[in-house]
Amino acid sequence: SRSLNLAVIPGDGIGQEVVAEGLKVLSAVLPQDVKLETKEFDFGARRYHATGETLTDADLDALKGHDAILLGAIGDPSVPSGVLERGFLLKLRFAFDHHVNLRPSKLLPGVATPLAGQPEIDFVVVREGTEGPYTGNGGTIRKGTEHEVATEVSVNTAFGVERVVRDAFARAQARPRKRLALIHKNNVLTFAGHLWTNVFNKVAAEYPEVTTEYMHVDAATIYLVTQPERFDVIVTDNLFGDIITDLAAAVSGGIGVAASGNINPSGEFPSMFEPVHGSAPDIAGQGKADPTATVLSVALLLRHLGHDAEATRIEDAVSADLGERADKPARSTSEIGDALAVRVAG
Amino acid sequence: SRSLNLAVIPGDGIGQEVVAEGLKVLSAVLPQDVKLETKEFDFGARRYHATGETLTDADLDALKGHDAILLGAIGDPSVPSGVLERGFLLKLRFAFDHHVNLRPSKLLPGVATPLAGQPEIDFVVVREGTEGPYTGNGGTIRKGTEHEVATEVSVNTAFGVERVVRDAFARAQARPRKRLALIHKNNVLTFAGHLWTNVFNKVAAEYPEVTTEYMHVDAATIYLVTQPERFDVIVTDNLFGDIITDLAAAVSGGIGVAASGNINPSGEFPSMFEPVHGSAPDIAGQGKADPTATVLSVALLLRHLGHDAEATRIEDAVSADLGERADKPARSTSEIGDALAVRVAG
Ligand SMILES: CC(C)[C@H](C(=O)O)[C@@H](O)C(=O)O
Ligand SMILES: CC(C)[C@H](C(=O)O)[C@@H](O)C(=O)O
Repeated sequence: SRSLNLAVIPGDGIGQEVVAEGLKVLSAVLPQDVKLETKEFDFGARRYHATGETLTDADLDALKGHDAILLGAIGDPSVPSGVLERGFLLKLRFAFDHHVNLRPSKLLPGVATPLAGQPEIDFVVVREGTEGPYTGNGGTIRKGTEHEVATEVSVNTAFGVERVVRDAFARAQARPRKRLALIHKNNVLTFAGHLWTNVFNKVAAEYPEVTTEYMHVDAATIYLVTQPERFDVIVTDNLFGDIITDLAAAVSGGIGVAASGNINPSGEFPSMFEPVHGSAPDIAGQGKADPTATVLSVALLLRHLGHDAEATRIEDAVSADLGERADKPARSTSEIGDALAVRVAG
Repeated sequence: SRSLNLAVIPGDGIGQEVVAEGLKVLSAVLPQDVKLETKEFDFGARRYHATGETLTDADLDALKGHDAILLGAIGDPSVPSGVLERGFLLKLRFAFDHHVNLRPSKLLPGVATPLAGQPEIDFVVVREGTEGPYTGNGGTIRKGTEHEVATEVSVNTAFGVERVVRDAFARAQARPRKRLALIHKNNVLTFAGHLWTNVFNKVAAEYPEVTTEYMHVDAATIYLVTQPERFDVIVTDNLFGDIITDLAAAVSGGIGVAASGNINPSGEFPSMFEPVHGSAPDIAGQGKADPTATVLSVALLLRHLGHDAEATRIEDAVSADLGERADKPARSTSEIGDALAVRVAG
């Protein structure tokens, strides 16, 4: 009999509520012969306040043995900005070498978008996850004085760029439209930009069927609101990926439905799946959060582990559920989870 | 009698056409007693191909004596990416210490937006213009090999941040809504982020009437498409400002109407005014370019030099013209310029 050994990190705010629904749908969709084992980890603001710890070496060891990690959300206003982001979220992505940060955007039928004319949106962003301005390189001198200088160093390596670019080409090749856009700012960030562009062009030669284009990140934000249908697969740097995937989520149904995977393709470390949204402390504990983004993250998790049929069942259930929302009264977090669990089981 | 001594840089592609209309409207709006003198400079791709030069010390000296600079657009596919951007545009912004990059966004009545529901958009972005990831710091080792490492260094100083933050607070204080948002990514770029946040909070104490908020750049892209009416004045870093002002332009009528000023508030060097759009080589020379962004840049130029009444006349003319467009057949670049010239003179 098969097993799925999952590390669960509900985290802060609405993280608890949405993860509960994600697990509910996961249990409902899994075949009888797959034994689901979950272990919950209490990371986040509470743990930080209680112990001062965000993510220790022992924590990393404990997480390592799992097939995958499901995360709700980490972050609370009571913790200074950066502490949990750098000390937990980014530490985990870097420690487990999550270099493929996968963020699909699909505007499903019946879902509201801020854009006029209900455009056809169906693309996936492959965001680099372990380099760029996210490395924490940089520093401050003369802090707090009028002579303070603060630097941030974006670090980009041929190794790091090539592996994520290859991942993106493989994904583009596997999709019907076979289109791949590189987004960067190579006219200003010329050192990193040339590395990205050269590697991209080199790998492109191995994928003659993939249609490629290059776009500056500023121009990309325009296309994301005026012609989002032009995108199929996008590959980009860690920071640009952070920015454009929030915009992509906004135009394709909102962050209530945006899922993501922090993937270590080699399988050396477990990959982590999480909704793009944050912990939303203002609505926490009220059953108001939409668990859909977490449920879709569970689908990404299942596909990553080879459970394709189950992933598709979840995605179809979400499509059907979203398509009927406009006509129905608002539901609570657990009501949405219940409805999705019924659909995937049925 | 007064004079206006203008350096004119038409540049590449549609730059020539749109600058001609900008000057046409400028001549029409200026009072009789203001003597307009213009000197044209042949910077851009042609000059680069002919001489290998982008912007020499002698060029900078020649530009210095002017009251202001009007620029069309610089850039051509025949020139490698980065050469004219770093060698001309950014060199000029840095040499003339254009630290306030001013980019207003106003959705005028009757103007199309990709957003549903015609939101009320009227804000101005104060983008830092001389620091951040734009300094050209960084480098490459082992170029072209599988061991290449490329870095980009974002440089932020208390001096540089404070002066632009002060400019933004003064602008917010002078506007009816008196709201100012700082946009950064201080949860990840903690060195630069803390400097920006601390300086912002320090200056805020001197402006008790200004309502402030902080927003991460990724979240800001969401608000720009879901709640653009919430913004009044935004202050941000050079790179974040580049990205969000293109998005802001897209939602508030497109880059055909987005103006900008690269301002040296001390007046030590001439300020430069330019449309946000590029040289658009695909439509160059066909009379298809919309000169409105350049004409609005002329309005910013006039306001900067103290000709407020004339600036307002141009803005009113543009509002009126845009408001009537939906009902009329498309016009050429010069027809739009003619119509605006008639309106401002009338
Ligand atoms: C919370 C933060 C560290 C994170 C990021 O910047 O990557 C978030 O915005 C995201 O997109 O997952
Ligand atoms: C052309 C480029 C150097 C420039 C920038 O990045 O500042 C442009 O995008 C702009 O916004 O003026």
